[in-house]
Amino acid sequence: MTTEADLQSLSLSSPSVEEPKKSKKAVKKEAAKAEKLLKRQQFSSASPSSVEVTAVDDADDLFGSNYGDVPILELQSKTVTGRKWTVVESMDAEMKDHSVLVRGRAQTIRAVGKNIAFVVLRERGFTIQCILTAKPDFVSKQMVKFAAGISRESIVDIEGVVSVPEKPITGASQQVEIQVRKIYCISRAIPNLPINIEDASRSEVDLEKADKMGEKLVRVGQDTRLNYRVLDVRTPANQGIFRIQCQVENIFRQFMLSEGFVGIHTPKLIAGSSEGGSAVFKLDYKGQSACLAQSPQLHKQISICGDFGRVFEVGPVFRAEDSFTHRHLCEFVGLDAEMEIKEHYSEVMDIVGRLFVTLFDSLNQNCKKELDAVNMQYPFEPLKYLRNTLRLSFEEGVQMLKETGVEVDPFGDLNTETERKLGQIVKEKYNTEFYILHRYPLSVRPFYTMPCADNPAYSNSFDVFIRGEEIISGAQRVHIPELLITRAESCGIDVKTISSYVDSFRYGAPPHGGFGVGLERVVMLFCALNNIRKTSLYPRDPLRLAP
Amino acid sequence: MTTEADLQSLSLSSPSVEEPKKSKKAVKKEAAKAEKLLKRQQFSSASPSSVEVTAVDDADDLFGSNYGDVPILELQSKTVTGRKWTVVESMDAEMKDHSVLVRGRAQTIRAVGKNIAFVVLRERGFTIQCILTAKPDFVSKQMVKFAAGISRESIVDIEGVVSVPEKPITGASQQVEIQVRKIYCISRAIPNLPINIEDASRSEVDLEKADKMGEKLVRVGQDTRLNYRVLDVRTPANQGIFRIQCQVENIFRQFMLSEGFVGIHTPKLIAGSSEGGSAVFKLDYKGQSACLAQSPQLHKQISICGDFGRVFEVGPVFRAEDSFTHRHLCEFVGLDAEMEIKEHYSEVMDIVGRLFVTLFDSLNQNCKKELDAVNMQYPFEPLKYLRNTLRLSFEEGVQMLKETGVEVDPFGDLNTETERKLGQIVKEKYNTEFYILHRYPLSVRPFYTMPCADNPAYSNSFDVFIRGEEIISGAQRVHIPELLITRAESCGIDVKTISSYVDSFRYGAPPHGGFGVGLERVVMLFCALNNIRKTSLYPRDPLRLAP
Repeated sequence: MTTEADLQSLSLSSPSVEEPKKSKKAVKKEAAKAEKLLKRQQFSSASPSSVEVTAVDDADDLFGSNYGDVPILELQSKTVTGRKWTVVESMDAEMKDHSVLVRGRAQTIRAVGKNIAFVVLRERGFTIQCILTAKPDFVSKQMVKFAAGISRESIVDIEGVVSVPEKPITGASQQVEIQVRKIYCISRAIPNLPINIEDASRSEVDLEKADKMGEKLVRVGQDTRLNYRVLDVRTPANQGIFRIQCQVENIFRQFMLSEGFVGIHTPKLIAGSSEGGSAVFKLDYKGQSACLAQSPQLHKQISICGDFGRVFEVGPVFRAEDSFTHRHLCEFVGLDAEMEIKEHYSEVMDIVGRLFVTLFDSLNQNCKKELDAVNMQYPFEPLKYLRNTLRLSFEEGVQMLKETGVEVDPFGDLNTETERKLGQIVKEKYNTEFYILHRYPLSVRPFYTMPCADNPAYSNSFDVFIRGEEIISGAQRVHIPELLITRAESCGIDVKTISSYVDSFRYGAPPHGGFGVGLERVVMLFCALNNIRKTSLYPRDPLRLAP
Repeated sequence: MTTEADLQSLSLSSPSVEEPKKSKKAVKKEAAKAEKLLKRQQFSSASPSSVEVTAVDDADDLFGSNYGDVPILELQSKTVTGRKWTVVESMDAEMKDHSVLVRGRAQTIRAVGKNIAFVVLRERGFTIQCILTAKPDFVSKQMVKFAAGISRESIVDIEGVVSVPEKPITGASQQVEIQVRKIYCISRAIPNLPINIEDASRSEVDLEKADKMGEKLVRVGQDTRLNYRVLDVRTPANQGIFRIQCQVENIFRQFMLSEGFVGIHTPKLIAGSSEGGSAVFKLDYKGQSACLAQSPQLHKQISICGDFGRVFEVGPVFRAEDSFTHRHLCEFVGLDAEMEIKEHYSEVMDIVGRLFVTLFDSLNQNCKKELDAVNMQYPFEPLKYLRNTLRLSFEEGVQMLKETGVEVDPFGDLNTETERKLGQIVKEKYNTEFYILHRYPLSVRPFYTMPCADNPAYSNSFDVFIRGEEIISGAQRVHIPELLITRAESCGIDVKTISSYVDSFRYGAPPHGGFGVGLERVVMLFCALNNIRKTSLYPRDPLRLAP
């Protein structure tokens, strides 16, 4: 389990690490050693005959130079040929009879007798069927045999001609085939993979069907997937999920920029003492006690007091909580925003409403392929949302719950179950699975939340829900030092410990508010996935710190 | 110094923290307390007479409702009036005679007798002169007195009419004035500020002139600035710097997306042991030893082996080094990229070259105001760069240094001084301050750097320089497990400790390479600033963990 740290401790490709110098002798010794290794590796295959990668030179085979394992030397940036590469995703019937050069993974390899082999080549989740047929003019039996012997998930280069089959292809995403002329193996995968990509890609529907029929299909468990994430993320659904996630962030950023927000970066290492609470990760910082930021709350507020007007940040946030739920992580990506308020916290809710309608619209329009890929494995209904985001007050929410027989404390918080219940009621009544609940009781919000003007038992705060689960908390903040102190005291906080925070508001502070969103939750709930570990590339929970 | 941590430990506006419930009694008690405070605060000013903010109701003053301190209650999202606000930056002569409503800071306040007061109002670095003239129809002497008594940096709302003065205005950025009709103070700054914004904004040129003349002007030191960053960032130069930084990131992201890169987020908490080296921050992770990632190196490589093809990441990187230079930080923002290579690491250099030409072009075109603001305080010459980025081999660089009498070890690394010297030579010879130096000696690069095909004493690696300082390191990586082990052993690394890293390449690994850039360095060097602390919003160095 020390791999990454030890690796990290070596100089990585980064600007500020400078390596110790080595003696000339050591340099020469190393060079000789590397050269020796290279020669050995080359020797194991035949030497290349041209700029083009070649590997086998069987005297019995006229086409010996058209297939083989590529020697290491050829993969060390030896030459620039300028050859054109075709992307699997782009291949369709319009390319009929074109010669193509493709690099991808051998997803499945199947030989039919000694004369035919099929290789399904996969590139970034898209697949194409490649066919080797032994023919006197192009392809030898030895070449078919070589192809048939390639291990699954190996990286291969294939040159060939595009053909269009008469029947639709079911075993690959692209509806054309490649008649193979050359095939080279760039990197061989070990024969026994810990995860079979076919198993990892299987639809939940097929698994359930098989269960009902009493058939046994391999179901790859969540932990196994995460242990071998390097294989797991190769499935079309995972390729889709993380491309969607990238788009969510991108749309967020572009929307915020268009609204005059400035993107900032606040420190993740912050001063802290051992009294810092149980939910923070603590560490030693050059002799000072420090902790990892649980949110950019303080620094984004300082930035507002520092005249940036409107700021946003995308960055990691750290929670040392022992939560083992489907929706908590110890490290996740926060999308945070803070803005001056002219009059009312509804200005913040306006931003949230428009942001998410823009986001949902854009995902539905621009991520069709990715959403389809997710849907194929994990079927879900598209999210229902209104053009003008529904806003309900907390009091209204409590009343709606009461009307359906669910009693909740009108000055308490909603729990996960009542949130979900309210989500159902709202969906039935308003036909939306995305809405804002605002004016929460003051007592269930952090001390820096602004109380309501008309009733200080409530606060100028809101939560936002997708499919009955909370994804955003937001509020107007207290910008008045005296009120902040009163509120802190009411919440039992030692005011001395927050004096520098309070002081930030003594140099003139505009009224302001903001919100925080969890990136992984947005993706999880938009796609109705059942676990946040599915939308975190390398998730961290109380038990998982690798890979 | 425990402020932030303690603050953080309280429930922040974030999705996954759930607050403990309070009893109804406690809730009511709190509400009563808050209400009491509010009443007290209100009482200190007069009660508002309408939806509009009002504060003073002096029986002797007909215009008593046109000025005053706004009571807290009015700042608690009491009403939505829909009033239109004008942005200072947008104000010009075309708005002559228009009525405007503006919120900003009272940067300077000057009374001329009892009848006239000038307030320079600042919003996000832009300033406008506002004039109060006691006249029977609009403005009372009491109002002038009120304005004259506002403390600097206070937040004020001003309503008035735009006028165009005959002479150019030198004390403000906008060339129009506001004839004030109403003025309300939203948030008063304490009278004695630790930093005077005028001092903090003073041009280096003026400071040098004053020095030469023997005059004494206040020069605000770097540490004082950082201690009171909330004030320091209000200067026009700082407003410019962080808006430029936001644009650098934005252009980077848009360029990478346009080139087919997928934005990812890798974990900052990684498994680690105490042998992890001195340059890492270590911490306890639920009983496991962990450390903070020094770069996303490992995870971006896994992501390439996970079929994402091309990935990038923007995120914090952590270095526990004791560097006290002008260009090192313990936490900074890394712009990282990793991509499949078809043939040659020049494919990575192609991306770098085009990325930066796009970046420089875009900054010059779209950040004129921000660059001017920086230039006003810290004068600099625009960066010289070529349309096609110059590439020199390390050998050529060594030769060029030799020709000017600078001897360097041909298999050693360049130090900061020789890098700067080479930068000068390159600038003179090629008229560019941005170039790539590639084919570094293998021995000065990390073990996972791919050796050159033609001479294993060199490597498929590169550094990139702006104004003679390194901003990027990049390379082709070793994707072949056996070669990786040999290289690690050559570098004296215990291969057992990196076995899971090596294993990532056993399931089929495409040739790949990448690079890492420090965001703060790019901004620092583009603007020729002398210290990286100027381009980090809340910098962290071995001695600084606050604010």
